[in-house]
Amino acid sequence: MKLSSIADAKGVFDLLRDDLAAVEREFARQSSSEVRVITEIAEYLLAGGGKRIRPLLLLLSAKALHFRGESRIRLGAVVEMLHTATLVHDDIIDAADTRRGRPSSNTAWGNSKCVLAGDWLYMQSFQVAMEERNFHVLDLLISLTQQMVEGELLQIQKLGRLINEEEYFDLIFRKTASLFRVSMQLGAAIADAPKEIEGQLGEYGRNLGLAFQIVDDVLDLTSEESTLGKPVASDLREGKATLAVIHALERGTGEEREAIRTVLADRSFNRVPHKTILAILKHHGSLDYAMDAARAYAEVARQCLTDLPDSEAKRALLWVPGFVTSRDR
Amino acid sequence: MKLSSIADAKGVFDLLRDDLAAVEREFARQSSSEVRVITEIAEYLLAGGGKRIRPLLLLLSAKALHFRGESRIRLGAVVEMLHTATLVHDDIIDAADTRRGRPSSNTAWGNSKCVLAGDWLYMQSFQVAMEERNFHVLDLLISLTQQMVEGELLQIQKLGRLINEEEYFDLIFRKTASLFRVSMQLGAAIADAPKEIEGQLGEYGRNLGLAFQIVDDVLDLTSEESTLGKPVASDLREGKATLAVIHALERGTGEEREAIRTVLADRSFNRVPHKTILAILKHHGSLDYAMDAARAYAEVARQCLTDLPDSEAKRALLWVPGFVTSRDR
Repeated sequence: MKLSSIADAKGVFDLLRDDLAAVEREFARQSSSEVRVITEIAEYLLAGGGKRIRPLLLLLSAKALHFRGESRIRLGAVVEMLHTATLVHDDIIDAADTRRGRPSSNTAWGNSKCVLAGDWLYMQSFQVAMEERNFHVLDLLISLTQQMVEGELLQIQKLGRLINEEEYFDLIFRKTASLFRVSMQLGAAIADAPKEIEGQLGEYGRNLGLAFQIVDDVLDLTSEESTLGKPVASDLREGKATLAVIHALERGTGEEREAIRTVLADRSFNRVPHKTILAILKHHGSLDYAMDAARAYAEVARQCLTDLPDSEAKRALLWVPGFVTSRDR
Repeated sequence: MKLSSIADAKGVFDLLRDDLAAVEREFARQSSSEVRVITEIAEYLLAGGGKRIRPLLLLLSAKALHFRGESRIRLGAVVEMLHTATLVHDDIIDAADTRRGRPSSNTAWGNSKCVLAGDWLYMQSFQVAMEERNFHVLDLLISLTQQMVEGELLQIQKLGRLINEEEYFDLIFRKTASLFRVSMQLGAAIADAPKEIEGQLGEYGRNLGLAFQIVDDVLDLTSEESTLGKPVASDLREGKATLAVIHALERGTGEEREAIRTVLADRSFNRVPHKTILAILKHHGSLDYAMDAARAYAEVARQCLTDLPDSEAKRALLWVPGFVTSRDR
């Protein structure tokens, strides 16, 4: 069997331009409430941009299965809205000041309104998903949301502590890969695809999501604030050990481990500067280790598509993992 | 048609003893998670008691329609869990220290965990409700939850401000009466009752819920902390004007209005003592006015049952409004 050739950014964008624009309109329509402050917060979050990678996956999944119904637009907006709801609550929990280079919603509106705005966005996602009249779609979305919430709670319990790789992968599955997986599964579900195909596309999403989050975590350690739109090494400042850090902890000297432990416990670089941590990570090849892991998951994602017949959408799905692992923000 | 005689507390309790015990067990089963802190918070909330009036209404509604299936237990636990989820988020928003005479969950676990525990309880309610495989049940629950969340947001916007009766009734409908209504409707929905009956039972619930909340708001003004399990006049301390206060504002002298306005704006009794406010309310008969309104809604609730055939459950439903309006906590 001939290996499908891989698309490029322009090709993928051209392929989805109209659909992504429709998702934006649908998101705006869905997030308008008679309670003004909800619409305000939702519009603010919508205008803040974001990669829209979850709707993109759902659209490509549906398209690869030749599904053209309106459900793909509606559910594309639903997965982005669900993602937005988690961000609103996560920012409260992390007491984040900025998100995507702007004040976070909790900074702008206060915690109380944002607890409720997050609740509203969750409920509205389900409300819109209800329009599908499809129990499988609802099962996927509700189980997913619960998994994400549990992940965030597990993360809180592990803050400031040294975790191992297994715990890390469980956390990033819940935090990111589970929604990537469900976005792909939803595309298959509305196309009425066989369970096996839905499973393969879901696995693609899961592996891609793991790759995506590993890269995100590396960028958090290495990028500039101006590129990230939030302070550098936010994860360490919040007491979160990510893959490269876990790698260095397992290989470092006693002194190096102590330096990392100090930053995690202090949740600041007051006693150990950021550049010391970076030097430790570089010395042990920990950043490369993490990037290699991300690329390996990206490759597994591609392999999950083997049974899918060739199409423009398939070529786009083959392109996404490389895009995700080579991005700089 | 002979008017049904009305039950008494013992009769109602005997009628529902087994079902209410089953709802407790179901609630405990539903709220156990592999994430330990969720189970801890849920058990704490469960042990805190509460009147269980929402499951009671659902059980009576189903029973009055001769429905005996397991759905009544499952959904009885769902409406209590949904109610609990709103309490967890409300306590964060109100920065409440105590609830039902114990530290509130946000005091005990902190806001971050409670944002997520509330989210989890919402999702779990829906997850369990999904087992019914009944879109109408899900529509009722999801619309309801959104209405409650919007109500809480509207309330925040009105804090410290003078509101009118119309705004007050909209708020207490969203906050309390909407869930009372849906509890009754769910009992009818699982019994597969005609839309008309479901509507009448829903109206019973709505009117009862309005009566319930009006009484709650009066008790907040007049009761002792030891009876309420939370500080006296919490509503005024949080900047919330309730029915008796709105009545006095419309009838009071300039000086009296100013006193009330000061407490609402200060959110404290530092400049105007609690007893001054109570004296104003008593002078204008405002507490009686509110209690009369509650009794009128209770009477409308009873009248909503006219078409329902006589049964033990109906007699219990006729008893509930009197119980709600004569309680002291």
